[in-house]
Amino acid sequence: MKPASIAVVGASQRMTRATRVVANLQRFGYGGRIFPINPKYGEILGLPCYPDLASTPEPAHSVVVAIPAEQVPSVLTAAVASGVRGAVVLSSGFGEAGPAGRARQAELEQLAERGLLICGPNCYGVFNIALGASQFSADVAEPLRPGGVGLVSQSGGFSHAIGEYLMQQRRVGLNYIVSCGNQAGLTVEDYVAYLVEDESTTVVGAFVEGFKQPERFRRAAARARELRKPIVVLKVGRSENARQAMLAHTGSLAGTPEIIEAALKQCGAVQVSSLNEMIDTLALLSATTGYRRAGWRVSITSGLGGECGRAADAADRAGIELPPLSDASVEQLRGFMPDFANPRNPLDGTGAMYEDARIFPQLFDVLLREEAVDVLAVNLRVNVPKPGGSAPSREFSRAMRDRLRQPTDRLVVAFSSFAGGDLDPEVIQTLAEAGVPFLESTESTMQALRNAREHQRFLDRPVAARPATGAPRASARPVGRGVLANAEAMRILGEFGVPLVETIPVKDAEGAVLAADRIGYPVVIKIDSPDVAHKTDAGGVRVGCGDAGAVRVAVRDVLDAVRRHAPAARLDGVLVQRMIAGGTEMILGVKTDPLFGPAIVCGFGGIFVEQLRDVSLRVPPVGRDDAAAMIAELRGAALLAGVRGRPAADVGALADAIVGLAALAEAHQSLRALDLNPLLVLDAGRGVVAVDWLVEFA
Amino acid sequence: MKPASIAVVGASQRMTRATRVVANLQRFGYGGRIFPINPKYGEILGLPCYPDLASTPEPAHSVVVAIPAEQVPSVLTAAVASGVRGAVVLSSGFGEAGPAGRARQAELEQLAERGLLICGPNCYGVFNIALGASQFSADVAEPLRPGGVGLVSQSGGFSHAIGEYLMQQRRVGLNYIVSCGNQAGLTVEDYVAYLVEDESTTVVGAFVEGFKQPERFRRAAARARELRKPIVVLKVGRSENARQAMLAHTGSLAGTPEIIEAALKQCGAVQVSSLNEMIDTLALLSATTGYRRAGWRVSITSGLGGECGRAADAADRAGIELPPLSDASVEQLRGFMPDFANPRNPLDGTGAMYEDARIFPQLFDVLLREEAVDVLAVNLRVNVPKPGGSAPSREFSRAMRDRLRQPTDRLVVAFSSFAGGDLDPEVIQTLAEAGVPFLESTESTMQALRNAREHQRFLDRPVAARPATGAPRASARPVGRGVLANAEAMRILGEFGVPLVETIPVKDAEGAVLAADRIGYPVVIKIDSPDVAHKTDAGGVRVGCGDAGAVRVAVRDVLDAVRRHAPAARLDGVLVQRMIAGGTEMILGVKTDPLFGPAIVCGFGGIFVEQLRDVSLRVPPVGRDDAAAMIAELRGAALLAGVRGRPAADVGALADAIVGLAALAEAHQSLRALDLNPLLVLDAGRGVVAVDWLVEFA
Repeated sequence: MKPASIAVVGASQRMTRATRVVANLQRFGYGGRIFPINPKYGEILGLPCYPDLASTPEPAHSVVVAIPAEQVPSVLTAAVASGVRGAVVLSSGFGEAGPAGRARQAELEQLAERGLLICGPNCYGVFNIALGASQFSADVAEPLRPGGVGLVSQSGGFSHAIGEYLMQQRRVGLNYIVSCGNQAGLTVEDYVAYLVEDESTTVVGAFVEGFKQPERFRRAAARARELRKPIVVLKVGRSENARQAMLAHTGSLAGTPEIIEAALKQCGAVQVSSLNEMIDTLALLSATTGYRRAGWRVSITSGLGGECGRAADAADRAGIELPPLSDASVEQLRGFMPDFANPRNPLDGTGAMYEDARIFPQLFDVLLREEAVDVLAVNLRVNVPKPGGSAPSREFSRAMRDRLRQPTDRLVVAFSSFAGGDLDPEVIQTLAEAGVPFLESTESTMQALRNAREHQRFLDRPVAARPATGAPRASARPVGRGVLANAEAMRILGEFGVPLVETIPVKDAEGAVLAADRIGYPVVIKIDSPDVAHKTDAGGVRVGCGDAGAVRVAVRDVLDAVRRHAPAARLDGVLVQRMIAGGTEMILGVKTDPLFGPAIVCGFGGIFVEQLRDVSLRVPPVGRDDAAAMIAELRGAALLAGVRGRPAADVGALADAIVGLAALAEAHQSLRALDLNPLLVLDAGRGVVAVDWLVEFA
Repeated sequence: MKPASIAVVGASQRMTRATRVVANLQRFGYGGRIFPINPKYGEILGLPCYPDLASTPEPAHSVVVAIPAEQVPSVLTAAVASGVRGAVVLSSGFGEAGPAGRARQAELEQLAERGLLICGPNCYGVFNIALGASQFSADVAEPLRPGGVGLVSQSGGFSHAIGEYLMQQRRVGLNYIVSCGNQAGLTVEDYVAYLVEDESTTVVGAFVEGFKQPERFRRAAARARELRKPIVVLKVGRSENARQAMLAHTGSLAGTPEIIEAALKQCGAVQVSSLNEMIDTLALLSATTGYRRAGWRVSITSGLGGECGRAADAADRAGIELPPLSDASVEQLRGFMPDFANPRNPLDGTGAMYEDARIFPQLFDVLLREEAVDVLAVNLRVNVPKPGGSAPSREFSRAMRDRLRQPTDRLVVAFSSFAGGDLDPEVIQTLAEAGVPFLESTESTMQALRNAREHQRFLDRPVAARPATGAPRASARPVGRGVLANAEAMRILGEFGVPLVETIPVKDAEGAVLAADRIGYPVVIKIDSPDVAHKTDAGGVRVGCGDAGAVRVAVRDVLDAVRRHAPAARLDGVLVQRMIAGGTEMILGVKTDPLFGPAIVCGFGGIFVEQLRDVSLRVPPVGRDDAAAMIAELRGAALLAGVRGRPAADVGALADAIVGLAALAEAHQSLRALDLNPLLVLDAGRGVVAVDWLVEFA
């Protein structure tokens, strides 16, 4: 990240990507030595050119490689031999490019394992802004603006676009721009971890197609929490098409979106869903490092009355609180605003604000002293004015800067009504001097404020001690593969304290009658087969068997139906179950992502989970508070609360079952899927009971 | 809208709002006569100035007024006297400004009723772009770009910002920019109706705080449908705070958001929720007037691999279909793309697209001939390049223009990954020549494409003949006020064919027993009182009364409970109802907006409607197809379809009940609210039956 000398393999006298790296190093004033490498030339851009890495006067600290993919492995092998420690591979044609490419990428991975720090391949490289160390192939606009935002992106184009936009338009300073492409060596997680520890970094931004080391990310996020540094993540791949696109782009596996989202949220990452939201969130967070008020109550000020309504709608959608102004403030505002003004929040400064220069500073001052408000959001139109045109925002921004010379604990942000057009550098610079970030579009501004607030709330929550699950770790002994037989499934669930309905497996009708006599009528008869996942669909369930005769008929019917429906299925007999009346049907389960591991899923059962997708997820460890939060965040949570005369359900027992499942998932690393469907949540005090289950191991 | 001469009252030798109007008229080459009016001056901006409207050499066709509010009514009265036909009132201090302001606005309204066409007050005015007739007080940037987009906005600031942005940055032509402020005379609806009929207008955009004449809007929308002109509406006021803000801004009543949304949707208005979405939707629709393909299957092309995944996610969120490319296209693409490319949709042109100028034109050509695709969306970075910097998008746009000289029935759009920064006029101009609109940000592009598609689908649906409701119109005789007594409520519902559970009102326990004997046990006993809206909460319901004894106890209990709970309530006795087993609980009802009138609401009953807000709305008339669509769009619709072995519900009968309620709401204009809660939807063929109802008149 801080190379003392840089060799550039593939530089030439045409403006290739490698040549642009050399040009960038010169242009941005890199202080170390630069060694262009190309056997064809003696000089490139005024620098002596060397035929190979072995010929440089001293071993290059780092090497940038932009040559055809098939030549890259041998050049890097030579680089290692000549003492190079780091390599930035710009070339494409690796993991994203079929079997031959994947073989080449494997060679790079071996070199990485032998200690070479590899960025890429298939990337734009690494740019240390403060040093001007541009091992970076894009044509970045000048001037650079050093600062606290560290960016890492698998997409080179976005690393460039976001970084440049923040520096040029928003006057937000950066320290690193990293494009890590296929991640043959260093991964997004490695760079995030580096940036979190790096003292010059205050905010980390990451554009991610596929994670490779979730555990490393989690550890980096835990450190970021200690250091109160936000990590902003734009993760691509919610849609199936996007997952395919990323496989094609950087050979990345996108993973299971819900599980990754839950995992990121739990470790405090700020997740955004568009580049505009990312840019605004980074710009805002880079200005809020010193913000110490506990609240995020926002006042909005605009010279456009129409904006006030729109902004209120946008705040409402984003969940931003716009408190009423105090009577005292309203009184003061009435003192100097025109008669037709109606001081409230959002505050319409009216056209008078543009005509009378005394109004805005007074108004701003009143809001800075308003106790009901923590954040002042000032709406400005800040596009570059046409020559000779009026630029009222220049005056407003100067008024803000002048007033903010007095200390305040409020957060002040400025924003435009929509995104588009060049921003007036004079205004942005004035605001930057006052510590006021400028955001574009009301919607994106409200999202950024919500993101910053949620991150601060995350930081302010006590770090949960690792929940004591009380789970018998010893139970993690090897179990079967595939769908477990019923007995084993019941044993495992029982060990982790998941209550199951009383169930007796039997071989035949007579056994079933004996079991039913023991359980008490009516009973349920179910097929017992690891090969039948959907018992009802296979005709494998009969409920309400009221006497021995009914049990015999049910056993015969169930066995017949399943044999017809699934002739190849292994039938272990039938299960006789107590029939449970009442209770709310829920589902509880475990899904797993190949990389991120298991997540616990909770939702309302039957078709509600399928149609309304009202589920909540957590990755283990899940403590009892987490479990309670999972239940509370279901949109249908009120179903459990006992509204309209219905008794409250046993939410505590449901939370216990969630904690138990999470412990089970942690103990059994090879668990692939687990479903309790339905799990009946009985009235408070009566517990929960799983009625059907399916446990599958890899 | 096309004044032959314009007087400007309040123009002066300082650059006031009125003076700016004069300056704008001169600057934009207005061809008619301009009469500055001010008793203090003999000349303003080189034009002779007149002391009052009576002194002008000929009566001005239209007058612009920008003087203190209290002087406006007398000036306009004089204007009418001197033969002026139209007035644009820029001044603030009317409906938005307390009792005195409202009184002044009432004076303007009286002048409007006497035939003066008034725009405003509290507005920026009217700008006829083609004539340069700028009765408009904002400092609009040159050059103007005449074209087919007509804009009307209650907010002056937004009319200016959106119009200028479209003309300057996007090269989208406009014909009118209207800011109508408080709408004392002409309303948003009047201007929309004008623009729909105006031949030069192809797309109408409206920023609305509060409607005043919903019927006029509906008629204009019906005409727009005939003429295939889209009306794009940004309606503010979903949040309560926004509704208050708009009352403060233009004195507008925002109305009931769900009802207005439903009404706008039904008449085909394209609703947007941010200014960026509005700008992009207007830019797209102004380019799609000639688009005649039936489909909207989209291909996405980018030189940034990272964009492909992101775009796929955004398309997925917006419901845009990205079909796979045909094998033939993939084969052709492989022929000239680098080995590491993976041709698919979204198509990653890879870095090679920037290095080899032959690739993009070929690739574009393949997509134009791809049968699986209707719309080509090309991702470009189009910010103004720094001096000497590379501008690959100029080449790409020229390649597109050159190829599009050959006729195609495809729609081609270009878009950036995020919104921000000045757009390179060279690129935008080249694209404009090719008929390619440029949109900003992937998310907004996908929203605009969805909006255009939905509008085309609306146009392509057959215009429903006014549904024959078969409702007995004669029944619209006056009914009671407030909550109707049970007998009257049952009569009205029955007249419109809404099935009610068998219900016998009785006075006392003995009557109840006789009624129960007739209905058959078990029965439900309910309180009969127009003053008890929530019968269960008041202890006014006993279900499952299995014999005469139980009925007697229930009647006593119910009467006692309600007397305790609501001592002042009028008790008409009790209702004896048949007890219905099974069925899906739904709610059906009528809500009313003071201006837009009634809307029919349908949703799943009990707490699901409260917690999950899964309801659909339609304003009458509602035909049977509309009713079926209402049911189908509920997220829980599958609950009625008979999944998992449950029998299908009688959706047809539910649709009939919706149609009946809509007819009832149309027939009874003073209906305020109606609730059937629950309405049980029984198994197919068994119908629906309302179990509880509440009917309230104004």
